Amino acid sequence: LEQPGLDRAAGEQFLREAFQILLDEAVRKGTDVNEKVCDWKEPGELRELLDLELRSGGEPPERLLERCRDVIRYSVKTGHPRFFNQLFSGLDHHALAGRMITEALNTSQYTYEIAPVFVLMEEVVLAKLRELVGWSSGDGIFCPGGSISNMYAMNVARFHRFPESRREGSGTLPRLALFTSRESHYSLQKGAAFLGIGTDNVHLVGTDERGKMIPEELEKEIQRAKAEGAEPFFVCATCGTTVLGAFDPLGSIADICQRHGLWFHVDAAWGGSALLSAKHRHLLAGIERADSVAWNPHKMLTVGLQCSAFLLRDTSVR
Amino acid sequence: LEQPGLDRAAGEQFLREAFQILLDEAVRKGTDVNEKVCDWKEPGELRELLDLELRSGGEPPERLLERCRDVIRYSVKTGHPRFFNQLFSGLDHHALAGRMITEALNTSQYTYEIAPVFVLMEEVVLAKLRELVGWSSGDGIFCPGGSISNMYAMNVARFHRFPESRREGSGTLPRLALFTSRESHYSLQKGAAFLGIGTDNVHLVGTDERGKMIPEELEKEIQRAKAEGAEPFFVCATCGTTVLGAFDPLGSIADICQRHGLWFHVDAAWGGSALLSAKHRHLLAGIERADSVAWNPHKMLTVGLQCSAFLLRDTSVR
Repeated sequence: LEQPGLDRAAGEQFLREAFQILLDEAVRKGTDVNEKVCDWKEPGELRELLDLELRSGGEPPERLLERCRDVIRYSVKTGHPRFFNQLFSGLDHHALAGRMITEALNTSQYTYEIAPVFVLMEEVVLAKLRELVGWSSGDGIFCPGGSISNMYAMNVARFHRFPESRREGSGTLPRLALFTSRESHYSLQKGAAFLGIGTDNVHLVGTDERGKMIPEELEKEIQRAKAEGAEPFFVCATCGTTVLGAFDPLGSIADICQRHGLWFHVDAAWGGSALLSAKHRHLLAGIERADSVAWNPHKMLTVGLQCSAFLLRDTSVR
Repeated sequence: LEQPGLDRAAGEQFLREAFQILLDEAVRKGTDVNEKVCDWKEPGELRELLDLELRSGGEPPERLLERCRDVIRYSVKTGHPRFFNQLFSGLDHHALAGRMITEALNTSQYTYEIAPVFVLMEEVVLAKLRELVGWSSGDGIFCPGGSISNMYAMNVARFHRFPESRREGSGTLPRLALFTSRESHYSLQKGAAFLGIGTDNVHLVGTDERGKMIPEELEKEIQRAKAEGAEPFFVCATCGTTVLGAFDPLGSIADICQRHGLWFHVDAAWGGSALLSAKHRHLLAGIERADSVAWNPHKMLTVGLQCSAFLLRDTSVR
């Protein structure tokens, strides 16, 4: 490593100045309703303005700080009161402080030895999320996004039901069938393709006019799949569908899963945080009967992207 | 949202003080050879020291700042000159400034509309990485880790060879066979399980005393798999094996892949950054013949965790 990477004083000075820009432009102006959400430019113009060519030589600190300012100026300030997105928004100063410290420490969660504090924190936070779901024990892990959480659920359900498929692959299994509503997230289809289950084997169950899965339709789809010689193994209910924000009726779906011996997963990526609301948590009644839950605190709890928890009820499932 | 989330002045003040702690403790002391890499505690003791109980009430700013100090104190400072890890280390002040700004903006990369600056930057950086690999065109994406990059490679190879398996799943395919060295990363096995290919279908090829794959052994394994009725489709060579840091002989492996019509993936998660070294890039001679490459700039380029690129040579592959 050459200079200026090792000029620690200059490096710290740079960090200090970059932080001041971040504070002024991204935090203060970025949350000020009188400022712009974004200084919008079309791709061609922005490419020129930013001058993104990667050169072999370095640039002086002043130029780099100017670049920091430009990055913020032309980016969307998602913490702005007029940034509208159905799934996330807002800036929490405390959460941001935590994230900056995490970045500075740059650890990985693989073992206690490399991240003692964060490993203990993860344990406590996951236990709290499980408690809110209604479980007194269980397991969990933070994932790089809700899509991956949903894939983990499908995969765990498959390995739990057919442990030998881990070694042998899906080729030796009967044709699997999984069920989710028409309004569910596209990651269920993507996951079925990725896991070698196949999108043809995702049965999309009908919904009512509010976007909620109709339990009778689920029952019919399961019967139909069985009649066609497929092996139902997994049902995904959604709490907070992407378009309408609908909450599937978890209790009735749990009954059906129980009767047929199917893995019951709840994709509560968006809606899970309603569990913290005394007024709205009834929307998730029955979630405690799930085998697994996907829940993204980054959506409604103002935590930064990505914060996605995959929760498991049964600790013995591997 | 209630106070103090909306008390912007207090929030900014908190951020300012947290940044000062970060700068003093994680950055300055964290890279000072005279300071400790970590104030080590066993889990039981650390749990008590940190007092991690999640309460319903809030805590005053002073207490939160004390907690920031404790988090840093008991964490491992991975930028410390005496932090030894075979895969990553070091703190680059400029990289950290970039990461802090990214966290403050809290955007997602899904569309130009939400992240105009970052989408253009990604385009330029991926093009540069491909250029270093030796390609004049192609595609790529940043992934949440090298394991996922390797899984994407396997999956793309499978869908490219058997496009119908995306819809139908792996159940209708012949028994697949993939090849990687005995010294390769465990994500290849994990990925085969996850994708429904099965770990039994991962053929581990013998290595020499330096940990490099022996091309003649690869040829033999391919013949053996074919004789057993399996369908070879994918070979993964490693540049920088986990234990010995070995670089597989890419040219000879590429010849074999070409002869048998197999997808040639290079897991250069660790070793890819040697492409920037005039002295060492010969170790990766032949990488330009790969169909896909996994490369983690966070390992040897002092970028923060996770920065993992998955690169594709052919833009028409989906």
